[in-house]
Amino acid sequence: MSQERQRSPVRIGLLGCGVVGGGVLRLLNENRSYLELRVGAPLEVRHVLVRDPKKPRVAECRAEWVTTDPEVIFKDEQVDLVVEVMGGETPAHSYLQRAIAAGKGVVSANKLLIAKHGPELVQSAISRRVDLAFEASVGGGIPIIRTLREALASDSVSNVHAILNGTCNYILTRMRDAGLGFDQALAEAQKLGYAEADPTLDVDGHDAAQKLVVISMLAFDARIDPAAVHVEGIRTIDSIDFRFAERFGFTVKHLGIGHERGEKLELRVHPALISKHSVLANVDGVLNAVFLNGRALGPCLLVGRGAGDMPTAVSVVADLVDVARSRLEGEPGLRTRSIQLSDRALVPRDDWEPRYYLRFDVGDHPGVVGTIASALGGEGVSIEHMVQDGRASTAGDVVPVCIVTHESREGSVRRALETISRAPFMKSPPRLIRIEDV
Amino acid sequence: MSQERQRSPVRIGLLGCGVVGGGVLRLLNENRSYLELRVGAPLEVRHVLVRDPKKPRVAECRAEWVTTDPEVIFKDEQVDLVVEVMGGETPAHSYLQRAIAAGKGVVSANKLLIAKHGPELVQSAISRRVDLAFEASVGGGIPIIRTLREALASDSVSNVHAILNGTCNYILTRMRDAGLGFDQALAEAQKLGYAEADPTLDVDGHDAAQKLVVISMLAFDARIDPAAVHVEGIRTIDSIDFRFAERFGFTVKHLGIGHERGEKLELRVHPALISKHSVLANVDGVLNAVFLNGRALGPCLLVGRGAGDMPTAVSVVADLVDVARSRLEGEPGLRTRSIQLSDRALVPRDDWEPRYYLRFDVGDHPGVVGTIASALGGEGVSIEHMVQDGRASTAGDVVPVCIVTHESREGSVRRALETISRAPFMKSPPRLIRIEDV
Repeated sequence: MSQERQRSPVRIGLLGCGVVGGGVLRLLNENRSYLELRVGAPLEVRHVLVRDPKKPRVAECRAEWVTTDPEVIFKDEQVDLVVEVMGGETPAHSYLQRAIAAGKGVVSANKLLIAKHGPELVQSAISRRVDLAFEASVGGGIPIIRTLREALASDSVSNVHAILNGTCNYILTRMRDAGLGFDQALAEAQKLGYAEADPTLDVDGHDAAQKLVVISMLAFDARIDPAAVHVEGIRTIDSIDFRFAERFGFTVKHLGIGHERGEKLELRVHPALISKHSVLANVDGVLNAVFLNGRALGPCLLVGRGAGDMPTAVSVVADLVDVARSRLEGEPGLRTRSIQLSDRALVPRDDWEPRYYLRFDVGDHPGVVGTIASALGGEGVSIEHMVQDGRASTAGDVVPVCIVTHESREGSVRRALETISRAPFMKSPPRLIRIEDV
Repeated sequence: MSQERQRSPVRIGLLGCGVVGGGVLRLLNENRSYLELRVGAPLEVRHVLVRDPKKPRVAECRAEWVTTDPEVIFKDEQVDLVVEVMGGETPAHSYLQRAIAAGKGVVSANKLLIAKHGPELVQSAISRRVDLAFEASVGGGIPIIRTLREALASDSVSNVHAILNGTCNYILTRMRDAGLGFDQALAEAQKLGYAEADPTLDVDGHDAAQKLVVISMLAFDARIDPAAVHVEGIRTIDSIDFRFAERFGFTVKHLGIGHERGEKLELRVHPALISKHSVLANVDGVLNAVFLNGRALGPCLLVGRGAGDMPTAVSVVADLVDVARSRLEGEPGLRTRSIQLSDRALVPRDDWEPRYYLRFDVGDHPGVVGTIASALGGEGVSIEHMVQDGRASTAGDVVPVCIVTHESREGSVRRALETISRAPFMKSPPRLIRIEDV
């Protein structure tokens, strides 16, 4: 095959033209000749599917491309690749099914869709011998999927610790650095556009859980139902927890965690205490990070913007180049068929065995510490540090008692906490934050 | 092309079978079926070039592969790919030229070779329409070349700050955390196998400079002579600098730095003060890191082991998969021909404009601070902080005066330091460490 041979263009149908779609069109235009060199053929946009054709678009979106009819794209045999940047589950799911069925390569930036339907879509793509690429569905501009799929082609991952939600990370950073409460920090994030008016998906951890599920597809070859992943958000983190964390040499981060435990996987999403010397400790503000351990590679950390139109568009275009290449190679689907997913059982919560930070808000009773320590000891939970800050001077005062445990089974810790909860000196439910060595 | 079609194997000649070569053979063996799926054909080792055939090798190295004659490999038309893991400039350079001339795809883990001869080898590979991949030549297991080449296909890099030498990073980490002096920390690193008996290449910064040159090929499309890069090592860093750095909110790291300045490039390798809240500040011990800013992508940090047999072998195998793919695609050289290098002038040292940490060891003279401040002010260098630690109590005492400047032209700073050097109160030459906002 000659280098100079004129290759016919790779033709693209773009589903959605919001900020990410606009960014993709801009990057395709700005990097036209370089991308042609990389792909070995020109990349040519043919259709752009929008809901409202009257809405103003980026200058790079030509009027003749715009359509409101998805069938125009799926039925156009000239269209080689479909790029989905519309988001949401419906109708994006059926559009991708249609595109794959029509034999088109697919690039998707849709986290929810890939987390919920990724395994099915991958399977369809493999059967239909087309590629499905989804770097932009997780971690915005962080090349995590590419790294897992390609850089670690001859390696396997033993565990992952990831900061997957920019909103949570921003709020926790501000709580730590400016001493803000959760509500204040959230309000500030909303004002700056880092949090939605309804922040539930972010601050309650569901967004991070979806990303962890997508990462687990590549890191652990695992088909996981996002609803099965244990998820905790950051609403219960208190300013006082940052002060105690600091005192014990930790900081608080919201993490998505995956551990391979023999045949099973331990997947969990929750706030965690990590050493303030951890490489993850300084990943602040809206930055995201994925820290993984490859059995041969050792530790590998990737940090970047987890969201944003241009970082996401850069990832979409990188995928587009790959899928276009597969197409021209005459072996479409090659990159996708190495994704071999199987169901993997999750380690039940009671069997997790991290260390714990426990906080008890207690009143002035004699024998408080003894009662707490005995309850933990009775369940085999051993204490590494204990700090009681001052003493209650009147009967109404509340004093926090903080404990850092050694590694313990979560079932045991929970049983001890139930016992302690019933003690008369307890002023509010005990708080538990897991400690991660990362 | 059918998915089921039996593809003839991609045949490999391995040059060198030390720890990295042994690791490559192990990974190829352990991941045989997965790699075949990824490549679309089996990967088959055909020859292993060694100097001493009697030396014991890893079990995966079959006796019938071993040869001491490189021509056996270059002349074997069945060999598709040559993997060079022998290191050194000679004879590796001529071997790669031979391999390329013979139309074979090439993977190299040779930093020195790529830094010095990469542009020439890339040009030869492009002319001969073969691929030359060299991820493992820089940063061991960190997928930096892949990220620059693929993830950022539609983006450009404005600057890079990188921790590129594990020996330097280990020594600086121990000086900071254990209060060791340079010599002690070096001795410890040597004992642990993190530093060579002759540590010159590492602690004087030349190893980092070679890696910066390789990164600049991809990040800035630049053909740079490694000898032209300004290099400083870490021998002059003193424990006291860590104490002052800490006081000003900084830590000390040895960095390779690249800034695009219009048409020119500012490339430098030296110790630097960075904020202790920087994502690079916690990259400790032997870890390496590359922190880059993409114009569209924004900040992107990659951290991992910068050396070691298995991390490097993982990178070699990842490259091997790519080059094998190009070969099977019928479009070998595709990945390499997007590397378009041009000569780029370097910004002269006097025109750099960072902030500076300056330390003056002074005796007890009246007007010391005034003299120093006036000399700096006379050159337009403005002072942000100044700290004098105590006072000399006897004439022989030495007191350090530390200054943090605002951004200043290095030419001006150097002229001021020359003036100050001549002052009678100066007990030793002034120390200068640049401050990087990263």
